[in-house]
Amino acid sequence: MNGIDKLKNYPHKHLLGIEGLLPNSLNFLLDLSQKYVKFLEKNSKKLDYLKNKTCINLFFENSTRTRTSFELAGKKLGADMLNISVGTSSIKKGETLIDTAMTLNAMQPDLIVVRHNDAGAVKLLSEKVNCGVINAGDGPHEHPTQALLDALTILSRKKTIAGLKVAICGDIMHSRVARSNIHLLNTLGAEVRVIGPATLIPKEIDSLGVKVFYNMKDGLKDIDIIIMLRLQLERMSGSFVPSIREYFRFYGLDREKLNYAKPDALILHPGPMNRGVEIDTELADDLDRSAIFDQVRMGVAVRMACLKALVKK
Amino acid sequence: MNGIDKLKNYPHKHLLGIEGLLPNSLNFLLDLSQKYVKFLEKNSKKLDYLKNKTCINLFFENSTRTRTSFELAGKKLGADMLNISVGTSSIKKGETLIDTAMTLNAMQPDLIVVRHNDAGAVKLLSEKVNCGVINAGDGPHEHPTQALLDALTILSRKKTIAGLKVAICGDIMHSRVARSNIHLLNTLGAEVRVIGPATLIPKEIDSLGVKVFYNMKDGLKDIDIIIMLRLQLERMSGSFVPSIREYFRFYGLDREKLNYAKPDALILHPGPMNRGVEIDTELADDLDRSAIFDQVRMGVAVRMACLKALVKK
Amino acid sequence: MNGIDKLKNYPHKHLLGIEGLLPNSLNFLLDLSQKYVKFLEKNSKKLDYLKNKTCINLFFENSTRTRTSFELAGKKLGADMLNISVGTSSIKKGETLIDTAMTLNAMQPDLIVVRHNDAGAVKLLSEKVNCGVINAGDGPHEHPTQALLDALTILSRKKTIAGLKVAICGDIMHSRVARSNIHLLNTLGAEVRVIGPATLIPKEIDSLGVKVFYNMKDGLKDIDIIIMLRLQLERMSGSFVPSIREYFRFYGLDREKLNYAKPDALILHPGPMNRGVEIDTELADDLDRSAIFDQVRMGVAVRMACLKALVKK
Repeated sequence: MNGIDKLKNYPHKHLLGIEGLLPNSLNFLLDLSQKYVKFLEKNSKKLDYLKNKTCINLFFENSTRTRTSFELAGKKLGADMLNISVGTSSIKKGETLIDTAMTLNAMQPDLIVVRHNDAGAVKLLSEKVNCGVINAGDGPHEHPTQALLDALTILSRKKTIAGLKVAICGDIMHSRVARSNIHLLNTLGAEVRVIGPATLIPKEIDSLGVKVFYNMKDGLKDIDIIIMLRLQLERMSGSFVPSIREYFRFYGLDREKLNYAKPDALILHPGPMNRGVEIDTELADDLDRSAIFDQVRMGVAVRMACLKALVKK
Repeated sequence: MNGIDKLKNYPHKHLLGIEGLLPNSLNFLLDLSQKYVKFLEKNSKKLDYLKNKTCINLFFENSTRTRTSFELAGKKLGADMLNISVGTSSIKKGETLIDTAMTLNAMQPDLIVVRHNDAGAVKLLSEKVNCGVINAGDGPHEHPTQALLDALTILSRKKTIAGLKVAICGDIMHSRVARSNIHLLNTLGAEVRVIGPATLIPKEIDSLGVKVFYNMKDGLKDIDIIIMLRLQLERMSGSFVPSIREYFRFYGLDREKLNYAKPDALILHPGPMNRGVEIDTELADDLDRSAIFDQVRMGVAVRMACLKALVKK
Repeated sequence: MNGIDKLKNYPHKHLLGIEGLLPNSLNFLLDLSQKYVKFLEKNSKKLDYLKNKTCINLFFENSTRTRTSFELAGKKLGADMLNISVGTSSIKKGETLIDTAMTLNAMQPDLIVVRHNDAGAVKLLSEKVNCGVINAGDGPHEHPTQALLDALTILSRKKTIAGLKVAICGDIMHSRVARSNIHLLNTLGAEVRVIGPATLIPKEIDSLGVKVFYNMKDGLKDIDIIIMLRLQLERMSGSFVPSIREYFRFYGLDREKLNYAKPDALILHPGPMNRGVEIDTELADDLDRSAIFDQVRMGVAVRMACLKALVKK
């Protein structure tokens, strides 16, 4: 990693997005994450850095992996983790997001992790609380810990990010994962392309410094890393994609399309996968090519690093 | 506080309601709560008074703040907290409340916190278990920890309860918060008034020792404390209130109506608020007049005190 | 217990079912459970055998008692317990069971407890993870910890299982409890009968080594233990049982039918009970005859034993 100007402490109060973070901030979190990867490998005792600290997992959208990953990460550091999910919450009673924020704030937690279906909701909430806030996904906007764990996975296999050619493929328009990854990869010196049908690529995307491709053959040429996105079936109303079958034919990753990329190209996917939609089942299961479950493992380490960095002593 | 006849230990097994509790019992809980307010201010290490103890949060109704408040309170004292919510419970399978009680009892918890939508359900459950039970709200009956945290909030601003004039405003009929507060405030020597439309004030209410007012101008005269109740929109079928707009005009608290009260009158609200229904948004946000988020903070301290008082050594 | 060939360590990685387990494996778990029964009686401090270990409760079906029982058991041993329920999980997003398994595996838990509505799903999941897996009920297939806690309850009252006559009554066809109990009781030398209407007894059942009875009078003759099954009302479509009233008349346990059994016959029920359907309310409440709440207490001890036996040091 480009280690100029290493930081001793993380300089920000919140982690709301990757956009605007400098390389030294990203490297601080990635360096710390790598330490926790080693810690998890040794399956050692729990740490007590966050003993007596309370973190709240506030999820307005369902999630297995992200919520569980944060909960595990917090517990490994000795924190008390409280889960609040919208299904069992008084948000349904019509309370505003700001009142929820101020109510939780009055309980004096040490950190709040928030997932919300609206872009910007997590930032709004962060302005009303005294503690640090981590964005665990806000609508189509950002999902910063996903981009960090993707970067950590790439680093573990390719040793560097600078100079790599990375293609992000699929439903770019609705994807917070795409947006966070574009910011992170650009900031750390990768060349980023997006590939997908014109209906799923927003027009303003080139302002983010990416090259746009509408077919996999051209887009995957000389690519080191392929980030496949989940086709958000629940968000589709038929107007974006003619049919699942058609979609897979043109944009689903299989061996044939993979051959367009470099011979050692690595496949990432944020999960959960739609097998046979955006990725071929046989390819998903080839753990030499696909780092999908590595990403999950890296996710716990990244969340440990973010919690450690943001919870005040 | 009127400190005659101070208690060394809390004399009751359960906390099912405020009705019937003597001043020394209430003062015992409030004194202990004040210690925990200071503990929370210092944001110290966790305590271990309830180490090795298991408390069950059994919620038949959704709740963010009350459930989270008890969970936090228990963890601050070192207890293991288990959450059971009706959405994920076998109650749906048709098990009776008594069987649920006896089943949980057989698991030998040290305390059970219960919220239930039927008045009396928590008492029924308490008769079938060996451990202490705290009522976290039973239908329109009682919500004792809410009344205690309201009292604690009043004490923190006014130093005493005896002699204060307190108005409880809004949907008195469906409110367990009103009922618990009336008992507590009367017992500790305040003068209590209720204000609301005739359709939302039960006829028997004067037997509880309160004065009834049907308009805010008369009811708020010389008042020290205003407790605004949540308009339970989900319970309304149109027959109690002509329209939300009409309701706010006559009973919603705004600057104009606030002027009827004493110049330093304090506003409480159990939350979650319906802004623009029972309280004006600008007033809710004036933290000099409105103690709404203080109440949440006091809530954690009160629940710590109640857990500590009721869990057997 | 028949103590020949006592084991020092539990020889299996998973606990997927009772079928195929040898007497010494069953006795290992039952011996250890009996130690934990004594531990729970003394209501001692928590143990720390599973300190720094993480167990995941993965429930695809709702459950109060089983989920809570495992959570309590784990906490008594010092483990961190994580709950994942299908209602708040990405399974709904269409992820396959195998991907869920591999995702959780990548988070490196020390044990996974799984309940699933399909027979065989837990075994499938266990093949994709590195840690031990406990089946907490898979469709109509097996529910091994229920059979173990039933055995422990029988042992606590009758001192032995070998030679006892046990009748399992009711909806045999849909019952994982019946299946696990038949295997366990046969293996430990009891004589097992099943009793129920022909529509609720699968034809192949005699291959499991049980005698089939279609009426309670004959089936209960000389019986020591009666295991009443829950009538799974939610699974019934009217075709299995003419009416609840008719069912109770012929197969619901009451004092009159109980008289067919031995005078000291003991009644078990896995809960939650349908009072007035499979068991008379007055009989359910007679704690000399009915061991229903003893079973719950034994359940915590059995789950402690299973967690202790399966989590790797």
